Amino acid sequence: MAIRLARRMAQIRDSALLSAFDKAETVEGMISFAAGMPAPELFPLEEIIRCNTKTLEEEGRYALQYGPVEGHPLLNTLLTKRVNDLGIAGTEENILVTSGSQQALDFIGKVFLDEGDPVIVENPTYLGALSAFTPYMPRYVTVEMDEEGMIVEELEKALEENPSTKFIYLIPDFQNPTGRTLSLERRKKILALSYQYNVPIVEDAPYTELCFEGERLPSIKALDERGTVIYLGTLSKIYCPGFRIGWIFTNREMIDHFVALKVGADLQTSLLLQRQTANFLKTFDMSAHIRQINALYKTRRDAMLRAIEAYMPPDVTYTRPKGGLFIWIGFPKGIDTTGLVDRFMAEKVLAIPGEDFFAYTPDRPYYRLNFSFMPEKEIDEGIRRLANVVKSLR
Amino acid sequence: MAIRLARRMAQIRDSALLSAFDKAETVEGMISFAAGMPAPELFPLEEIIRCNTKTLEEEGRYALQYGPVEGHPLLNTLLTKRVNDLGIAGTEENILVTSGSQQALDFIGKVFLDEGDPVIVENPTYLGALSAFTPYMPRYVTVEMDEEGMIVEELEKALEENPSTKFIYLIPDFQNPTGRTLSLERRKKILALSYQYNVPIVEDAPYTELCFEGERLPSIKALDERGTVIYLGTLSKIYCPGFRIGWIFTNREMIDHFVALKVGADLQTSLLLQRQTANFLKTFDMSAHIRQINALYKTRRDAMLRAIEAYMPPDVTYTRPKGGLFIWIGFPKGIDTTGLVDRFMAEKVLAIPGEDFFAYTPDRPYYRLNFSFMPEKEIDEGIRRLANVVKSLR
Repeated sequence: MAIRLARRMAQIRDSALLSAFDKAETVEGMISFAAGMPAPELFPLEEIIRCNTKTLEEEGRYALQYGPVEGHPLLNTLLTKRVNDLGIAGTEENILVTSGSQQALDFIGKVFLDEGDPVIVENPTYLGALSAFTPYMPRYVTVEMDEEGMIVEELEKALEENPSTKFIYLIPDFQNPTGRTLSLERRKKILALSYQYNVPIVEDAPYTELCFEGERLPSIKALDERGTVIYLGTLSKIYCPGFRIGWIFTNREMIDHFVALKVGADLQTSLLLQRQTANFLKTFDMSAHIRQINALYKTRRDAMLRAIEAYMPPDVTYTRPKGGLFIWIGFPKGIDTTGLVDRFMAEKVLAIPGEDFFAYTPDRPYYRLNFSFMPEKEIDEGIRRLANVVKSLR
Repeated sequence: MAIRLARRMAQIRDSALLSAFDKAETVEGMISFAAGMPAPELFPLEEIIRCNTKTLEEEGRYALQYGPVEGHPLLNTLLTKRVNDLGIAGTEENILVTSGSQQALDFIGKVFLDEGDPVIVENPTYLGALSAFTPYMPRYVTVEMDEEGMIVEELEKALEENPSTKFIYLIPDFQNPTGRTLSLERRKKILALSYQYNVPIVEDAPYTELCFEGERLPSIKALDERGTVIYLGTLSKIYCPGFRIGWIFTNREMIDHFVALKVGADLQTSLLLQRQTANFLKTFDMSAHIRQINALYKTRRDAMLRAIEAYMPPDVTYTRPKGGLFIWIGFPKGIDTTGLVDRFMAEKVLAIPGEDFFAYTPDRPYYRLNFSFMPEKEIDEGIRRLANVVKSLR
């Protein structure tokens, strides 16, 4: 039988590399700078066991059942409080819990995009956002960044030239993949452009609280007086990815649309995980936990920067993020990077090739390096191995 | 800001009734025949607490992390074994775990459907399938059913008239919403038509093992010699919905496409829930558990049938399912059912209006009645209340 697929399937990137990485993660001795994995040694395991067991013992027959599509009310309240504490106004009416914030990205694509619709993204941007949007066949309009994030003049030009743009997708804090942070000045200007051109901002904020140098800047959503910014949050980076708890926070009209999509997409996020997470958040000191995470990640970022300085050739570029999970490393134009990812893998180091983060072809080869998952010693050794391969290329 | 949504949003049904039902479920004294909820008193709670805690204690730092998009290998093995035990050939290469089988339905729409593509569905069919497919804007081609399920001659006519049909969606066992079962004869004929017209069958099989009268029939997938049937399974009805574990079982080429979609949709199904489920399935006697479920559901089905016979007017029609979760009740043509669902709700009974299960307008008013969730006494009382409202309509 010849399978006749939807046209969108021709545009979806092969997941072969991802599957290969998934398998490689489990290989003994592998040093992984690939996924944005939090440090598992900081998972508050004892407290999780206590809360999960208590939830099952006290309300198991409810928690194991189907739940409301709009989410567990107590969790909605507690997550709303977390969002409010970040300076963002709103109530439980403004939230929808999603199965990780990846699902929120899928919903953003589904709610806004007809084939050919322009979407403005940073260049480069989060590969998972591209994976989520591409099935809805948008036309990507990329806007260049510098050390302060998206360049405002280029954004204005893009909006001018693409009046039917559906949304502007941004990761203002410790961007994935570059680690860059959008300056406060630019946040205000970009929000003003969003109002002026009538194009909503989708603010993806998984790393906001992973700020280990300098002051945390206000979210664009915290500056949003008209309620049009669509804010995406997650517990995956400050709690555990295994709970798959993300959320969309925005005006009620949009939330109603997302609720309608949630029913068809997966009915609901696991009520068990929602209730367990709610019971956890009720009592756990998350602020102290985040301080502990940031202290560790700072040492790991520093270890990675030191190793890059020590081992990499001088014409390699790299970012110096003040938070988050990633350093973005660039290799000189023109070096032959064919099969590079396999050579890295043969040396037992995983890192994600930069081209996955570009809507179009990048100007030169980049790699995204995660520094949160591996201990300092492995970070040093891994960068040394990568550098040896890179040096052998010339 | 005027929000400019994707065109698909105009076709998506309002979720207001669903949200109202979600809220009403928690009202004291409410009798719910609405959702397809399993009986929570049969959840193997002690065993679940034991397995969940053991998983966290022994492998918590792995289980709480991100996991492979293709799913936890042990769970894949154990689910494949369950599928094999139902007479379906295949290996772990043929499975993808999804976040409930609702997510699998979303992927079916996403992988196959361009705007306007014909899709063949039973008339009526599962409302969640319509919610999943509609965002991809297909053209529904409905095929009538009788007591033996989809009528083969009508299917052949539909295939003849719609040569670009992308797939045939069927729930052969104890169909949702009618409770009807497709006969063995028709399964074979429909499979032959699928081969002949080069149109894959999507076999949705959540209720297969909830067979409490007569012999279980082989799945269409068990008869499929070419490997083209796409089989959807779930643990929600025989274990617990709260784990959100469903799966797609089909040829590897299609699985690869679904894996590519999974990345963009939600990265992965919670590794924590996958590992906990795997550890549960390893030791739990699921066959004995399913026998216990079926014994209880049989008494509840019987109680509902008795109550319908006792209280409903004689011109009301209803099905007599041999398994599953639902009875399908039809009211005479021409009675005024405006506001009926609210009148039922005012009497503290929830049931889902039939029109939600039709791609187009039904010939007369129907309701879907779930019999698995409520104890016998409430079933009797709930049907009595519904009957009183129905009698008052003439």
